[in-house]
Amino acid sequence: MTPSSAQKLATQSPKPSGPNEENPSESATPPSTILRVTRTHRCFAWAKKLAAGVKLDIRARAPWYISDWADAWNYRVVPATALIFFANVLPGIAFSLDLIETTQQYGVAEVLVSSFMAAFIFSVFGAQPLTIAGVTGPITVFNKTIYNIIERQHNPPVYLHFIGWVYLWGAIFHWITSILNWCNFLKYVTLFSCDTFGFYVSWVYLQYGIQVLTRQFGSTSLQDASGAFVSIILALLMLVTSFLFQSLSKQDYFHTHVRRFLADYGMPMSLIASSGIAYWGRFNNTNPTTLPVGGAFQAAGGREWLVRFWELDGKWVGIALPFGLVLWILFFFDHNVSSLMAQSSDFPLRKPPGFHWDFFLLGITTFIAGLIGVPAPNGLIPQAPIHTQSLLVMSRRNKKGIDEEELTIHPSHDHLSNGAHTYSVSDHPVQPEHPEAVVEQRVSNLAQGALCLVLLTGPFLHLLNLIPRGVLAGLFWFMGADALRGNGITRKILYFLRDKKLTPRNEPLRKVRRSRILLFIGVQLAGFGATFAITQTIAAIGFPVIIMLLLPLRIYIIPRLPFTKEELAILDRPTASPFTMESVGGSL
Amino acid sequence: MTPSSAQKLATQSPKPSGPNEENPSESATPPSTILRVTRTHRCFAWAKKLAAGVKLDIRARAPWYISDWADAWNYRVVPATALIFFANVLPGIAFSLDLIETTQQYGVAEVLVSSFMAAFIFSVFGAQPLTIAGVTGPITVFNKTIYNIIERQHNPPVYLHFIGWVYLWGAIFHWITSILNWCNFLKYVTLFSCDTFGFYVSWVYLQYGIQVLTRQFGSTSLQDASGAFVSIILALLMLVTSFLFQSLSKQDYFHTHVRRFLADYGMPMSLIASSGIAYWGRFNNTNPTTLPVGGAFQAAGGREWLVRFWELDGKWVGIALPFGLVLWILFFFDHNVSSLMAQSSDFPLRKPPGFHWDFFLLGITTFIAGLIGVPAPNGLIPQAPIHTQSLLVMSRRNKKGIDEEELTIHPSHDHLSNGAHTYSVSDHPVQPEHPEAVVEQRVSNLAQGALCLVLLTGPFLHLLNLIPRGVLAGLFWFMGADALRGNGITRKILYFLRDKKLTPRNEPLRKVRRSRILLFIGVQLAGFGATFAITQTIAAIGFPVIIMLLLPLRIYIIPRLPFTKEELAILDRPTASPFTMESVGGSL
Repeated sequence: MTPSSAQKLATQSPKPSGPNEENPSESATPPSTILRVTRTHRCFAWAKKLAAGVKLDIRARAPWYISDWADAWNYRVVPATALIFFANVLPGIAFSLDLIETTQQYGVAEVLVSSFMAAFIFSVFGAQPLTIAGVTGPITVFNKTIYNIIERQHNPPVYLHFIGWVYLWGAIFHWITSILNWCNFLKYVTLFSCDTFGFYVSWVYLQYGIQVLTRQFGSTSLQDASGAFVSIILALLMLVTSFLFQSLSKQDYFHTHVRRFLADYGMPMSLIASSGIAYWGRFNNTNPTTLPVGGAFQAAGGREWLVRFWELDGKWVGIALPFGLVLWILFFFDHNVSSLMAQSSDFPLRKPPGFHWDFFLLGITTFIAGLIGVPAPNGLIPQAPIHTQSLLVMSRRNKKGIDEEELTIHPSHDHLSNGAHTYSVSDHPVQPEHPEAVVEQRVSNLAQGALCLVLLTGPFLHLLNLIPRGVLAGLFWFMGADALRGNGITRKILYFLRDKKLTPRNEPLRKVRRSRILLFIGVQLAGFGATFAITQTIAAIGFPVIIMLLLPLRIYIIPRLPFTKEELAILDRPTASPFTMESVGGSL
Repeated sequence: MTPSSAQKLATQSPKPSGPNEENPSESATPPSTILRVTRTHRCFAWAKKLAAGVKLDIRARAPWYISDWADAWNYRVVPATALIFFANVLPGIAFSLDLIETTQQYGVAEVLVSSFMAAFIFSVFGAQPLTIAGVTGPITVFNKTIYNIIERQHNPPVYLHFIGWVYLWGAIFHWITSILNWCNFLKYVTLFSCDTFGFYVSWVYLQYGIQVLTRQFGSTSLQDASGAFVSIILALLMLVTSFLFQSLSKQDYFHTHVRRFLADYGMPMSLIASSGIAYWGRFNNTNPTTLPVGGAFQAAGGREWLVRFWELDGKWVGIALPFGLVLWILFFFDHNVSSLMAQSSDFPLRKPPGFHWDFFLLGITTFIAGLIGVPAPNGLIPQAPIHTQSLLVMSRRNKKGIDEEELTIHPSHDHLSNGAHTYSVSDHPVQPEHPEAVVEQRVSNLAQGALCLVLLTGPFLHLLNLIPRGVLAGLFWFMGADALRGNGITRKILYFLRDKKLTPRNEPLRKVRRSRILLFIGVQLAGFGATFAITQTIAAIGFPVIIMLLLPLRIYIIPRLPFTKEELAILDRPTASPFTMESVGGSL
């Protein structure tokens, strides 16, 4: 994308204050004010603040709806769609493998339908179409645990009926949450919690990659052992080539466009190449284990898609309620943190957010998921922030705001003049790239969901069936390691490992006492450790509760620890910019 | 090593002009002058110039002999010894595997004895003790080809007797070469030939790594296939971890000492770790193929060490002569290029070289090798330059010559003064390191040779036997890829791939027309292609002849191609500094 089209984007989309100025009555009562009502006006205020966040979200985003489609006429939408399609659908299926094999109630088709359904609803109706939703690891563990519990009962209910009710309860909690504006609690979700949760998810990815490999050693026959070793080779190749493409895209080689191509399509190319190697020469003889796929557009076991969950016995409806509550806690944190990270302050966003409305929509997708018997989708980490990242329009500008492109072409044209024409620039002539704008639109999300429908057709299901599990393991490692690298906890640890003499003078952490950085990391790692530990036990289903405890920890405990205000401001800050946080009543 | 000890080294060893000043009569007749004698004085001059180079070398180096041992009291000798030991002995053994298995005349012990013998003679008696010699790929191919040829004859001679005579002929050519000062031809060995040969050797390493792996698929039983796949995993692990350690040592993390530790011991650590993994859990069940070792200090097949090659039939003595000639061509190029690269202008050497004398010694080692029936050792690429590299003393100095270390400690001491005390330096406070001196001594070479003797004892032979061949394949890849990265041809190709806008202004290649850079690379790649191609055929033994043709190509053809003088000066230059080239009568 050329700088001029970036400027077009920038001018075409007015500053966020625009739509708000059209509704001066709205901006007079931001959510934060709404919450601070006096006792005497409680009754009146109660009625007034019902669904206030949702209404605000809709009014803020509606004026941008047409531009959300028009702005998609941009090349960046293509690589973003390709990247997210692979980064969403393959881990989604891989996470579901255990669920599919244990319960026999789901198949690959269910995962694809769930991904499409989420993409369709959030891209067409959502206030935050950048947030990618799909099937995550936690929900598959959640569904599997419920299966294990009810199967142990005398006279168990039909599994999908029960899950249908759990999802309905969960959906009801979602709707209550958005009507009561509880998403305003998001202002307490600072980088402290997001980094800890992101760190946890990264390690789950790394661990899952290993599990995919070790599971293949299940049988002891030598034929299988060969296949398992080939899987390890494929995983290593996938990991190494993905990182090679990524690092190549960050070096000085090739034209800018080629570098961007490598950054955009490096992972899909590695995936296809590594999968191809599995069918080459000796490797082919080992029959690497691939994905189990069923018939086109067919639900597992040939059942009809509609789940008649209203036929469930009343007793079980009641038992489903606490499970619905846990589901709600999980999604409240997981989905909203994904949304926050997809709209973090790293990205120069210009269109307003809408957490309340999107959480209402998440209730609807959860309900539909129960109705058609698929795993419930929700916001994805790290896919959601990866999506925004890949929609970034970069530019290289020098300090005077003049595009360097024009300046630097000269020397190669007149290099025969023997350097007489020199500029006051360093040996390395060009400034580093920086984010100029994000292509904020609904098409990439919709398109990657639509590709899931394409995958459900016969020929493409066959292609999907060709991907070896070893390559999936490598994909998990790459995504986990890549997310880990950008994580705030990792960056703080790296600051510690860095040679003091080589640490830039303007590094903000230099202003924090080293003992206090350690303390802060220590608290985060303790939270991570507790969460990670519980997922290794049979109480795994309760991990959202532990994650949720990070919020009171941040609000009540952290301020009592011996940090100065300045130190805490450097160590922790809101995940998203004030502009984004406006939807939830401002930042902490 | 602290800067002060580097300074000590620098002051302790006087500038090269020192020893020359003591022998003013010598410096009045440098070899270049010797060669330019007039017709009338031919007879007298002929006698005078006999072995003139050898005498010059001995006189130049002798005054430094004691300091060559005293200067070894330096920490850098330890990592250099460890690094070169692994980089020399393991590829040497791996290259010999094919020879060992085909001929049944050699074993691992022979390779170790050969390495020790070369290290002992060159470190104790050599004029260039930095040049590491050992068993290379070409000599093993040479010995194997001879075996294949003579075994096909009626009534063949005893193989080791015949090889003994080949080596003796080779040795005689070596001695003639040094007496007639033919090493003066080295002035025509510019970077053009060194880069082409280095490029060739790198690809041989890469190819050999692949061969080590593919050979394990020889048998079709499934047990073996498992082992072969494990070997691929081990090779990938060895390659990736070695490069990880190397790249970590170049980043900003950890203290300088830790980074240097990673650079020094990264490869040995990777080797031990990768070998260890082969004995861990499931991998262990596959019994990865390791090295074939015999008894302690025992020659293959229990023969006595002395080879009575004088018992060879007269007819075969004559047949051995042309083989000795090919051996001589190989060693003339291979050994001298190794020496040149180990003393390249990249390294700030202070002690004088001695190509003539060392080539005389190479004749002696070749003769001894024939006498005791081991493969003849010669100079190693890339090990010889790696050795000098690892003996480098680095320092960080700013332009004023003040050690930055003192400057940069301040800010962290008074960081509470809130930046009031600032320096006029950039955000990145420290200059990059640059080579300050080389620890020029004889101990590291001798020590790595002595370790080969240690390996010949029972317990260590067992340890050696534990190293899986897959790890050796990874070692080949790492050494090949690493050598390729620093190669001049690669660097020119990378210049072409580099984004023009991101190429530093002071890059010398900017002054050469792009078509001419392409032409130069093209000629080099043609030379590389011809050499590499011939080693894939049954005429492999003739590859030294092709390599040798690079010299007339450079002298007679290249100057007729449409390069300007300035362009050629940028594209090609002497491998070593004028100081080093003085031994062979100056540069081209």
